[in-house]
Amino acid sequence: MGKQRLAFLSDFVEAITRRTRGAPGEAETLKALSRPPSERIKAACSVLMGRIGDASRVAVAEQALAAYAELSPDEKQAFFELLRDSYGVVPDQIRSAYAAWENKPDADAVAALFRVVEPARQTLLRRLNLAPGATLQLVRMREDLLSAIRKDPSLEPIDQDFAHLLASWFNRGFLTMRRIDWNAPAAILEKIMAYETVHRMQGWPDLRRRLAANDRRLYAFFHPATGDEPLIFVEVALTTGIPTAIGPILNAPEAAAPVEADTAVFYSINNSLAGLKGVSFGNFLIKQVVAVLSSELSNLRCYVTLSPVPGFARWLSSQTDDRAVALAKALSDPAWQNDPAKAEALRPEVEAIAARYIVTERTSANLPPDPVARFHLGNGAQAHRLNWPADFAPSALKAAHGLMINYLYEVAEIEAQHEAFVRDGTVAHGAQLAEALAR
Amino acid sequence: MGKQRLAFLSDFVEAITRRTRGAPGEAETLKALSRPPSERIKAACSVLMGRIGDASRVAVAEQALAAYAELSPDEKQAFFELLRDSYGVVPDQIRSAYAAWENKPDADAVAALFRVVEPARQTLLRRLNLAPGATLQLVRMREDLLSAIRKDPSLEPIDQDFAHLLASWFNRGFLTMRRIDWNAPAAILEKIMAYETVHRMQGWPDLRRRLAANDRRLYAFFHPATGDEPLIFVEVALTTGIPTAIGPILNAPEAAAPVEADTAVFYSINNSLAGLKGVSFGNFLIKQVVAVLSSELSNLRCYVTLSPVPGFARWLSSQTDDRAVALAKALSDPAWQNDPAKAEALRPEVEAIAARYIVTERTSANLPPDPVARFHLGNGAQAHRLNWPADFAPSALKAAHGLMINYLYEVAEIEAQHEAFVRDGTVAHGAQLAEALAR
Amino acid sequence: MGKQRLAFLSDFVEAITRRTRGAPGEAETLKALSRPPSERIKAACSVLMGRIGDASRVAVAEQALAAYAELSPDEKQAFFELLRDSYGVVPDQIRSAYAAWENKPDADAVAALFRVVEPARQTLLRRLNLAPGATLQLVRMREDLLSAIRKDPSLEPIDQDFAHLLASWFNRGFLTMRRIDWNAPAAILEKIMAYETVHRMQGWPDLRRRLAANDRRLYAFFHPATGDEPLIFVEVALTTGIPTAIGPILNAPEAAAPVEADTAVFYSINNSLAGLKGVSFGNFLIKQVVAVLSSELSNLRCYVTLSPVPGFARWLSSQTDDRAVALAKALSDPAWQNDPAKAEALRPEVEAIAARYIVTERTSANLPPDPVARFHLGNGAQAHRLNWPADFAPSALKAAHGLMINYLYEVAEIEAQHEAFVRDGTVAHGAQLAEALAR
Amino acid sequence: MGKQRLAFLSDFVEAITRRTRGAPGEAETLKALSRPPSERIKAACSVLMGRIGDASRVAVAEQALAAYAELSPDEKQAFFELLRDSYGVVPDQIRSAYAAWENKPDADAVAALFRVVEPARQTLLRRLNLAPGATLQLVRMREDLLSAIRKDPSLEPIDQDFAHLLASWFNRGFLTMRRIDWNAPAAILEKIMAYETVHRMQGWPDLRRRLAANDRRLYAFFHPATGDEPLIFVEVALTTGIPTAIGPILNAPEAAAPVEADTAVFYSINNSLAGLKGVSFGNFLIKQVVAVLSSELSNLRCYVTLSPVPGFARWLSSQTDDRAVALAKALSDPAWQNDPAKAEALRPEVEAIAARYIVTERTSANLPPDPVARFHLGNGAQAHRLNWPADFAPSALKAAHGLMINYLYEVAEIEAQHEAFVRDGTVAHGAQLAEALAR
Repeated sequence: MGKQRLAFLSDFVEAITRRTRGAPGEAETLKALSRPPSERIKAACSVLMGRIGDASRVAVAEQALAAYAELSPDEKQAFFELLRDSYGVVPDQIRSAYAAWENKPDADAVAALFRVVEPARQTLLRRLNLAPGATLQLVRMREDLLSAIRKDPSLEPIDQDFAHLLASWFNRGFLTMRRIDWNAPAAILEKIMAYETVHRMQGWPDLRRRLAANDRRLYAFFHPATGDEPLIFVEVALTTGIPTAIGPILNAPEAAAPVEADTAVFYSINNSLAGLKGVSFGNFLIKQVVAVLSSELSNLRCYVTLSPVPGFARWLSSQTDDRAVALAKALSDPAWQNDPAKAEALRPEVEAIAARYIVTERTSANLPPDPVARFHLGNGAQAHRLNWPADFAPSALKAAHGLMINYLYEVAEIEAQHEAFVRDGTVAHGAQLAEALAR
Repeated sequence: MGKQRLAFLSDFVEAITRRTRGAPGEAETLKALSRPPSERIKAACSVLMGRIGDASRVAVAEQALAAYAELSPDEKQAFFELLRDSYGVVPDQIRSAYAAWENKPDADAVAALFRVVEPARQTLLRRLNLAPGATLQLVRMREDLLSAIRKDPSLEPIDQDFAHLLASWFNRGFLTMRRIDWNAPAAILEKIMAYETVHRMQGWPDLRRRLAANDRRLYAFFHPATGDEPLIFVEVALTTGIPTAIGPILNAPEAAAPVEADTAVFYSINNSLAGLKGVSFGNFLIKQVVAVLSSELSNLRCYVTLSPVPGFARWLSSQTDDRAVALAKALSDPAWQNDPAKAEALRPEVEAIAARYIVTERTSANLPPDPVARFHLGNGAQAHRLNWPADFAPSALKAAHGLMINYLYEVAEIEAQHEAFVRDGTVAHGAQLAEALAR
Repeated sequence: MGKQRLAFLSDFVEAITRRTRGAPGEAETLKALSRPPSERIKAACSVLMGRIGDASRVAVAEQALAAYAELSPDEKQAFFELLRDSYGVVPDQIRSAYAAWENKPDADAVAALFRVVEPARQTLLRRLNLAPGATLQLVRMREDLLSAIRKDPSLEPIDQDFAHLLASWFNRGFLTMRRIDWNAPAAILEKIMAYETVHRMQGWPDLRRRLAANDRRLYAFFHPATGDEPLIFVEVALTTGIPTAIGPILNAPEAAAPVEADTAVFYSINNSLAGLKGVSFGNFLIKQVVAVLSSELSNLRCYVTLSPVPGFARWLSSQTDDRAVALAKALSDPAWQNDPAKAEALRPEVEAIAARYIVTERTSANLPPDPVARFHLGNGAQAHRLNWPADFAPSALKAAHGLMINYLYEVAEIEAQHEAFVRDGTVAHGAQLAEALAR
Repeated sequence: MGKQRLAFLSDFVEAITRRTRGAPGEAETLKALSRPPSERIKAACSVLMGRIGDASRVAVAEQALAAYAELSPDEKQAFFELLRDSYGVVPDQIRSAYAAWENKPDADAVAALFRVVEPARQTLLRRLNLAPGATLQLVRMREDLLSAIRKDPSLEPIDQDFAHLLASWFNRGFLTMRRIDWNAPAAILEKIMAYETVHRMQGWPDLRRRLAANDRRLYAFFHPATGDEPLIFVEVALTTGIPTAIGPILNAPEAAAPVEADTAVFYSINNSLAGLKGVSFGNFLIKQVVAVLSSELSNLRCYVTLSPVPGFARWLSSQTDDRAVALAKALSDPAWQNDPAKAEALRPEVEAIAARYIVTERTSANLPPDPVARFHLGNGAQAHRLNWPADFAPSALKAAHGLMINYLYEVAEIEAQHEAFVRDGTVAHGAQLAEALAR
């Protein structure tokens, strides 16, 4: 660290300290320093790791995050490189801690080794998190990081530290579930509208239809540190019988009172914050919603999804056996989309091949190739029924030739199916899929 | 793990799974198994670390915590021994991960090493924390652990893992401050009464006096995962001038409207949960209260504590120089407690020796020996004035010969004093202490 | 109105107006005027009835109520005399309005007559009610008035106006019912404790027992204009079977979870504000509580009171027939209170005479003489069972020789019993009373 | 009342009673009776006035209001005729009560007279108001009534009773003011959008602009009996300087933080419920908003409206003097709307004539002819400045040739101006209007 840099650093601390003493506010401090944000964030991180007190840390963490918010994409990339290169581990520290442990392998030696093996950026991120509102800002920083990694995979190690800390901060016990209806604050509803990407909303009336009706529900998880930000939400339709297509769910006029419905359909599950990738709540949310609905609506007998199959079309096009190739060819002519008879003729084969995709196909990690299937099967659900054609939205036609699946959440079977899936990769499936497989 | 144990384990998993499928409830499950809690908790922890899904983990974590709640003190001790011996690190794993890293010192190798150096109990505690209400139960478990460590210091390493995780879970950003007044739920007030140990409350009227009056305030921090549990709270008296004794604060009739007060006195700060030892909020709480009060009451000029000096009497009795010995002897005759003239005669010497105790005395870690002094000085406060005799409560007479101190929180000086204390151990102090030191 | 008075009045208006323009506050205004409250309230009322705008009225109404609060009991009496004599009707206005109506009996003429027949104090009270917090102050003013009427019955007409307006303001639709439990603000709990007069509470632990337990509930009505003031509340015990004495209800340790109870016992109903006498909510409260409990606790089969019989002893002592005289004599020897055998011997006769008191005895208005009986029978309940001896509290021994009654609220019978009671004075009663009557 | 009618009535009571006993629900009851709503409402009102208890009254009142909701416009008209003819006063009762009073003119006699002079429909309305949600339904009933009166003025007397009762129920002390912002429930925001008629909203983004911005506020009054129904609301823009036209207010992009604004502009005040006509809250709302804003935003110096002049065009067209006729002619050519120079040329004369309209013109009741002027002047505001052209909306061009006025609320002057307006009809006005008048 050069002399000039050091001088700036001490000015920086001086300025922050002065500010707390009643001198002019943040804006002035920064103007006085007149340094670009890329320098300010470096300085602030450096100060944060030094020997200063908790209270100063809060102020410095605020400065750091404020500077981060001003960075250009390139500067962010540079900042992540800094995190990779200067806030990792120090090999010599590891070596000497390891030697000390080999010499006397007691608990203190393990703890000392732990401290030097944990990358320094974990400490840095914890200290940044002291600033008011920091948690959400760090989630968004990770979103930037995930983009940056796509360009430069060598940044990947940083993400492990983010993932580790976010999993701890977004502990399931800190989440609260709330039903979102027409009495929810508009500020939250607006976010719901923006975050719905599975079946996009067409403005406020569509939103209203999805949460203010007798036969619709919407539930979301919130975290105290991210306030009114819905982290994940699920949209539920209360129906009679299991639906076989998404159109009627999205477009049906409001139905009678919910007490008559026998089925709850989870037709859209959305993770709101890309920066929370891999910190999974969906499992908990679905189970808590099932618990709430079953205590409120005693007529409900069946909890089921109506889910997309996002990987089907790509997988199909990659298959080389004759049946798959023939099917891909047949589907490539869009005539079936407007001709029910044609669709009906194709259906048995679509089901047969799709059943194979869901039930028997495996990735190199011995998992089903479809991400939505992995999610619901991993939760203990059963692949209950293939529906084709079920979704004519262009994106659904492109990704899955219009195919959708009902996954069934049967309370009495969830644990056993879940264990079987986790242990042996067994895909629980219903009679329709079994039959289709046998074709 | 013997054969019989394994059989029980599989029964256990089976039983939990069966339960979730709609079979009889928890009580029945356990009765059916008819195993003592000490076995059940071992089994549950073992299952938790195995390859089971999130949802099963919640159920098993609940079982584990329920079993823990039934353990006798001796069984708890045995459980902690289990955590120490079976949920630490595996030396051979460390050795081979280290070798791999030495061979190819990249980020993946560091991550692999990190995973084996982190004691397994951290993972275990994280998984226990999935159960509803687990966080508070784990805090109480740590309280037990701290007791256990006093008997068996070899358990100490476990506490490092608790401390590490609790610091992350009780991140400052997850806390919310609330003013507690006479409109607070009785359920919270009841806890406040129980947790106040600095100046104990004499029942509901005393409580009411401390929080429903024009000239009193009480603020507490809460955490979403521990609900209505006040984690720490501070009691504030609004006065004219800095008080020199606690009696008038505790016993004064309600004063005029708060707008006339020029001083806010923090006269009692209580950490509620022993299991959160070392996870410090006091610093943040005091600063947030100062911010709130100064925005509400524009007449306030001075923020000051009236604090006990818990280590004074013991320290004095350990001193061997003539002045200290003479003072200890003089104070041992309780006559001064009822004779103001005698007290007045002793006062200069009490102040002189007490100033030495606060300002110049140091522990081996180069810190002031008094824990309350360390807290406030570490927050950036100044040791403003010694008050003697100031507290005639038997506990205060015993611990500090009735001595109290005002620590002054001067916003404009806090950062500088804090930095000086952290960096050099400098104890900021007022004119009265400076003068007393010179005697 | 003398010249001096007029001068004061104009000063008064001037002062209020000046105050609103930013001149010194209320205290100064009044000190400047240096007039006693009895003059100030007269002046304010006079101004209120004059031609001033709404905004000025709010300020003047505040002045009037502030002055009222300073009046001595004698001055209040004088103020009520003023209301009686100067804020009634003007005979000549009635005469001419009547003549005009006789001349042309159209709707306008009726309206004109209505205006002059309505005592002026109704307008005055409505305008006083414009001040913030006025409603509660007017309720308390009526409480004073009811005391004053006991000394001077000629004030009675004023009360009709109060009763008329309060019935309108405390319309049932404006009330909200809240469950009060241990999470209620202490400020409300404190009032509950003060207002409970049927079975007095012995401090906070007793209060806690009555509302924080699994087998106890407390519900209250609130009105938006009186804020946290519980207007009426009912205490409920959840039991197995109908209780026959109050002791076990008040002293029993907390029972198992409420779901097992089959009976809800309304064992204490308290009207909090004496100034709301005759504005009845009890009927609505009980029915709403029945509705809430039956939707929450599906095991409940029976809704019943355990009620005092406050008029029994006095009535008994006034009876002159041989049986009653003999019973009164027997009860006057307190030996039965400690000797169950003696009590058992007396019981058949106590029941027989008490059944007569409840079922067949009538006042000159053809109603049952007991006020509590009138309330519950008027609500449509049935006099279900006499319990003797059931309450050994001194007040209960004095008022009712320890007698209590269960009134049964049977949803399917309420309307019919209520109509029969209102129409014909029929007292619905259970088999035990029927049998006792026949003795 | 014919025999058949009586039979129906007793069936009706029977049916209601049966229902409460657990027999089939409301729908069935009515179907069983198979009577049209016009008969059912008559029967229910008749029962309500009879000798039945409070609890039955609630059920019957519900039936009555349910039947009312089914009436066609013609049937409503017939129902109002019933209220007029059968629920008024009984002349013979008035005569005999009057005679009794003349005979013995004491308080009881006045009370008796009062009872017979009050039209029976007041009692009826009070009893209808016992039903849950009745208050809002009665407000809507009055809205229907006001329409009906326009067709048949002989119904007018009924409205006096409605007005009398609603004024009492919607007492200012029962109202609560709430700020409505982007965190308000969508269900309320939707109503705000529907009720805004002064400057209509163009959908959700427009709504958001008006209440979620730094420089906009919206405040509303609510009543406990009408729940989430905003009774009246005012929209406020925070600006620098007094605005002279509505366009910039409605279309300006969001401004800087509110602390910089020195002026609060009340640019739209809407009464939501036509059925509350004459029950005025606007006065209280404006004053409470002024109080809230001045305590929150210390920079505010000026509270002013930007108000329409709804009666100007019609008044102008009715004037016969040369200047007015000439101005009307000049304005009738819309060229000025697109040609600033032409508008500038016309402005002095528009201001002169408009000043006359506002300041000197009087109705037969000696009030200014403009209703908005009457409202603000009656509140004590000053007609501060004429703005022309200020509003190019078609409705504003039609009603006021685009004229708007700023009324100034100057706290120090409000009372005096209000008193002068009420007492003498004096219109407080600013220098610009004074000058224009002199032209």
